[in-house]
Formats: sequence, structure tokens, C-alpha cells
Amino acid sequence: MNSFLEKIRTNKPLVHCITNYVTVNDVANMLIACGASPVMADAEEEVQEMVSIAQALVINIGTLNSRSINSMMLAGKKANNMNIPVVLDPVGAGATALRTKTALQLLEEIHFTAIRGNASEIKVLATGSGSTRGVDVDLPDTASTLDSSVREARQLACQHQTVVVVTGPEDIITDCDTTCLCANGCSMMKDITGSGCMLSALLAAFLSVNKEVLEASAAAVAAMGICGELAQKKNKDNGNASFRNHLIDSMYNLRDLKKLAQIKQLTSHMS
Amino acid sequence: MNSFLEKIRTNKPLVHCITNYVTVNDVANMLIACGASPVMADAEEEVQEMVSIAQALVINIGTLNSRSINSMMLAGKKANNMNIPVVLDPVGAGATALRTKTALQLLEEIHFTAIRGNASEIKVLATGSGSTRGVDVDLPDTASTLDSSVREARQLACQHQTVVVVTGPEDIITDCDTTCLCANGCSMMKDITGSGCMLSALLAAFLSVNKEVLEASAAAVAAMGICGELAQKKNKDNGNASFRNHLIDSMYNLRDLKKLAQIKQLTSHMS
Amino acid sequence: MNSFLEKIRTNKPLVHCITNYVTVNDVANMLIACGASPVMADAEEEVQEMVSIAQALVINIGTLNSRSINSMMLAGKKANNMNIPVVLDPVGAGATALRTKTALQLLEEIHFTAIRGNASEIKVLATGSGSTRGVDVDLPDTASTLDSSVREARQLACQHQTVVVVTGPEDIITDCDTTCLCANGCSMMKDITGSGCMLSALLAAFLSVNKEVLEASAAAVAAMGICGELAQKKNKDNGNASFRNHLIDSMYNLRDLKKLAQIKQLTSHMS
Repeated sequence: MNSFLEKIRTNKPLVHCITNYVTVNDVANMLIACGASPVMADAEEEVQEMVSIAQALVINIGTLNSRSINSMMLAGKKANNMNIPVVLDPVGAGATALRTKTALQLLEEIHFTAIRGNASEIKVLATGSGSTRGVDVDLPDTASTLDSSVREARQLACQHQTVVVVTGPEDIITDCDTTCLCANGCSMMKDITGSGCMLSALLAAFLSVNKEVLEASAAAVAAMGICGELAQKKNKDNGNASFRNHLIDSMYNLRDLKKLAQIKQLTSHMS
Repeated sequence: MNSFLEKIRTNKPLVHCITNYVTVNDVANMLIACGASPVMADAEEEVQEMVSIAQALVINIGTLNSRSINSMMLAGKKANNMNIPVVLDPVGAGATALRTKTALQLLEEIHFTAIRGNASEIKVLATGSGSTRGVDVDLPDTASTLDSSVREARQLACQHQTVVVVTGPEDIITDCDTTCLCANGCSMMKDITGSGCMLSALLAAFLSVNKEVLEASAAAVAAMGICGELAQKKNKDNGNASFRNHLIDSMYNLRDLKKLAQIKQLTSHMS
Repeated sequence: MNSFLEKIRTNKPLVHCITNYVTVNDVANMLIACGASPVMADAEEEVQEMVSIAQALVINIGTLNSRSINSMMLAGKKANNMNIPVVLDPVGAGATALRTKTALQLLEEIHFTAIRGNASEIKVLATGSGSTRGVDVDLPDTASTLDSSVREARQLACQHQTVVVVTGPEDIITDCDTTCLCANGCSMMKDITGSGCMLSALLAAFLSVNKEVLEASAAAVAAMGICGELAQKKNKDNGNASFRNHLIDSMYNLRDLKKLAQIKQLTSHMS
């Protein structure tokens, strides 16, 4: 598991992000902290060329608009042509028709290596219905059982031959055949903006240099959760702004991922 | 006064922000720190739908453009229809014709629950003339008396039946009938970008769950000022970047607003 | 050399930035830290008017698009008309045709007081060929000798009668006639996003109040490097997020630039 991280630090993959302007700085610094090299570019005139020199692409619809949606389509198709990993973060799918429609259209036209969202966002993509509270899990979905989230994540993963990551109190990672749960993480991760966006970018970094998609995704999820734990410990009685700094700092200093990762495999779904 | 803050933490209102890309991350983390749930969205295709699930709207013209101005109009009208609070931050009104014109047009077409600006911005909106130094108070206005700022704030509040907040060495809060001064705050608040933007978003959070508009606005202003004081104390001889973190951290940990608030009511203006 | 910094703190120049949304917040806080007043505005309807009240302009193409490119042209020409300093940061020139073309077109239509980039970006502008790895120095260029970078920097400076700054392990500052090297700085400056963007903005602040272009540019470069050294010392075993805060904090507290600056002049190139 440590080798997944070490490979990033050795190869310094260029990760192209078409992402929102709310958390973009944290995403860039988190990518650097894990050993990758971030580049943000969203002009339709250049995204295909930027993808052509990148080792992975992240598409995050957090502050989408008609111009950037077009760039996402162009970049995603180019990444598929080049056979480099593409990660989708369907921020707010279920909150507005534009977000739901865009996420579904991206899913139709682009093959994603991994998709990461909260339980509401993934439910919307898997079932075509449901709602999201802005960019947060909708209240009814917080009460839903882990079982139903696992079912929806798997459904989405099977439909699109992709890895689906659902972040929450317990994180789900599934590639349709195999489902894992990750118990790393801490309560303060939901008290900053950008925890999800940063993880989606980390997934791209991990997948850019590792061919074992499920394992590398689980490693990225565990790495993020471990950094959350280390940050909360270091943060003591400070607040969420300091926590954000400690979170990125912890990734910068993370060496032994294996020792702290708490991943367990559920019984295989294969019949 | 503590109940204003407690209600935010109990109800976790969704605050939709159409705001600038300079301070958007701090605004989001400050909203989370006070107990609210931020969502940033500015595409004209979705802002009305996002408003429809929100409990308050912030319109901040800090990096406006023709696309976002249209979204501001659509979102503001929708918020008026739904009868949820709308806060205007007229960043840089008086610095360029586009900013002045846009702010005045927003005031004409949308009813704002509260407007927050510096003395120059409020003067421009109240009197239709004056200038702003980029996003900072214009030099001549720093020398103007508190009296003239109170007069202009009140004029704007009376014209538009709104609460006007003028931030500066001493903060003014007025709803035309009653004017309060808040002595909380510290000198370093002007040494970071975003103090004003964060307060405008806090106003929206406080107003979203509290019906007493003047009192809730004063509580938001006091809360921000108190956090400034706590942050400056904690910051010791660090600089403005650390101060920013301490400011947001202080809001995250703020419990007893009442004990530290320094608000005094001026003689009522009512004849 | 200290007087360059003191003049900024006395005059508080307004620095207008048309810059990318990745590092814009750090750029604004760094400008405040050095004593300047930042304003970010990129709408084509207002940039000329904003320039007209500013003391310097920064054009940074980090997240350029067709709309902002037009604004850059308008703002740059206005700044030339007004005879205020303009600084170009050609982020990612060499990575995509759009970036290279835009940077070259800006150079053709606008006279820049200073241009700051990494070795790859400057090589592309000087020679019209070469490549950049996203926003980072391309791997082959890291192996190139300091000599070749000095040659390309000087070539660009001579062609465009401008000061060229190349940041790297050793920074180059040249105005064609005279070339200096700055040995300040630290390894962690490349481990955050925005080191380059912040320096480009600092160059604008230093040039806005100082007429000695080469000397003021060298002072800005040294100031940034010194803050990096102080920040790395203060950072101890923290990571890159804390380093970013310490970097800006160090500028806020920087008083004695002269004592720590390590600038040496190469033999003059003049024949």
C-alpha cells in the first residue's frame, strides 16, 4: 500500500484539474503534498492540449457553467482517447437540474476510472432520482443505512464499469465485483470546504501511476482519512481553518500509509 | 444574543453565495465555522433552483462580470419571491462605473434584507456619488466623521427599507429607525482580504434563522468583531495569513457572544 | 534596499491584478503583507477604469480564457497609456498553444516593465520554442545550465526593453545591460502553488513606487526569497500548507531586507 504513494512521489504525475473556484487552491496544494504536480486549465481552446501532456484528469462540477461544461466534455474525451485515468466529482448532483443533467451526460460520453461523491450525489447518479442539499448530503440520506449506500455505489460501478467512492462516516470503495469499507477519517473533515474535492484529486494522482484501480483508490481514500486523523490530533482545540492546514501538512509528511490504513473487504458480491 | 448563534448551529441553514473568486474559500469556511452550510453557484441556468433550496442568499460583486450579474438578478428576484433574506456586498462600488451601476441596479430590482460595505461604498449607494479606492475605503472618506457615515448609512437604510452595515474602526448598524454602533474588532481585520466578504456571508447566516433583523445583524457584526479580537490575541507576532486562520478558528469555537459584544444604541432617529 | 519596501508601506499603492483563480487569495494577502492594496477585476467593461485608479497592473495568464484575454489586452494598453508599471506572469507558456500565443501577443501589444516566469516559460518567450510541464519547469530545462537561462532571460529583456526575472534554485534578474543573481529562497517554495504568482504581484508593488527598475525588481526577488527562508525555519517539520502561511506572515513582518539579501551582479554584458 505504501508503494502507491511512493510511486506518486517518484513520478510526480501531472494532474490536470477542471475544478471549482471555491476549493481549487486547497486541491492544488493537496496534490503537491502527495507528490503530484497540479495544473488547472479550463479554456475550451486549450484543455485537450493540456490533457495530452497530463497523466490524469479530474472533472469537478462544483461551480460549473456552460463554458466549463463544454471544456469538461472535450477534456474527458481526450483523456479517454489517451487512455489516462479520469475522475469525476459530481458536486451537488441532485441539488439542481443543471448539475444532475451535466453529471449524467458526462457519464454517458466519458468513461470514468473513478467517481467520488457523498451518499446523496451517488444515489442520484445511480438511481436517477434523489436530492442533495447544496453540496452536502441531503438530510434523509444521512439516516439511510450503509447497506443502501453500498447498493447504490455498486449499482453505479456496475453500470459504468468504474470505481465508485462514497465518502461519509464510513467510506465505501467498490468496483462492482469487490466492495471495501474504509474506517479512517474524522469528524472535522466535514467542517471544512474541500475535503471531497481534495480526495477526488488524490484519486486521480493515485490512479495516474498505479494500474490496480480498486486497490489504488482504496489507498487514496485511506491516505485522506489518515491525514484527517493526524490533523485532528494535531489541531487540538483549534478550529476548522487550522484543521485544513494540518490536513494538507499531514499528507506532505505521510510516509507509512500501510500501518494506519483501516480497510476491510466486504464479502464479494460475485455470485 | 447567544441564541442568534445557537439557532444557526441547530438549523444549519443553507446559504447560497454568488461571490467573488478572491475570498470565496474563506467565506465558505467562515460559514461552516458559524454553523451554516455554504453553497456557491453562479450559472444562470441553476441559480434560481439553488435559491429555492436555500435559506439565504448573498450577492457579492467583488469580481462581477456580465454573466454573473445576470445570475445575481435572477437569484435575487427568486429569493424575494421566496421571502428568504438577501444580503448585498457592493464590493468596489464607486471604483468603476460597472460596479456602481450594477449595485444601484440590484438595489432597484431586488429588496435586500441587509447591505454591508465600507464607508466609501455605502456613501456611493446612498448619495449616488463618491469614489472607492479599489475595494478599500477612499482616502478622503477615512477622514470623514463617524457622523457623516451614520447619516449616509441611515439614508440608504430609509430609502430601501433595509439594514445597512458600515464596517470600519467602529461599525454602524442601522435600520433607519434605530442605529447601533459596535466597538468590537481589531486593526488586523483590514490586513487580510475577505473580512468584509466573510461578514456579509455571516449576516446572511444570522438572518436566515432569526426574524429580528436589526438585532440579528448587530449580533453578526459583533460576532465577527469578537473573533477578530480573539484572533489578534492568539496571533501574537505572526502575520496576516495566520490571523486569517485564527479568525475563522475563533468563529468555529465561539460560544458566548453576549459576554464580549460591545454594541451601543445611538439615540433613536425617530422624530 | 530597505527603502524600496518602506516606500510601499508609506504609499500603499493600489495594485490591479488580472490573475488566475487558483492562487488569487494568496496573491491578495501577500500584496497586503508587503504594504500594498490589491484589487482584482477582470470584466472587460471595467478593467480600463480600474487601471486608471491603480499604481500598477499584474497580468497573470494562469487560468486564461477568451474573455479574460481580452481584458488583459485592454488593461495592459491602458496601463501603458498611463505610464504605470505592468508585470507579466506567463504561467504555462509552452504548455499549450493558447498560452504561448497569448503571452507572445501580450508582449507584442503591451510594454511590460517586468516579466517573471520559470526557466521553461522564459525560454519559450525568448526563443519561440520549448515546452513547459503544465505550470512547472519542463524536466529537460531543470538540467539546463544557469548559463543558458541567463542567456535566454537576457535575450528576452533586450528584445522587449524590460526586466526579466527567472525564478529557480538561483533567481536571475536582468534588464539586458546588467544581470544579477539572487541566492535567497528555499526548497519549499516549489512545494506550494502560488510562489511565482505572489512574486509577480510583489514585483508590481515594488515597481509602483520605485523608479529604479532593476534594483527594485531585485529587491522584490530578494524579499520573496528571504521570506521563504524565514518561513522554512519557522515551519520546522510542518508541511506545505503551514509553509504558505509562514511565507505570507514573514512578508508582513519583514523590516530589514538589506541585511539578508544575497544579490550579486554578474559581469556586465555591455560590450
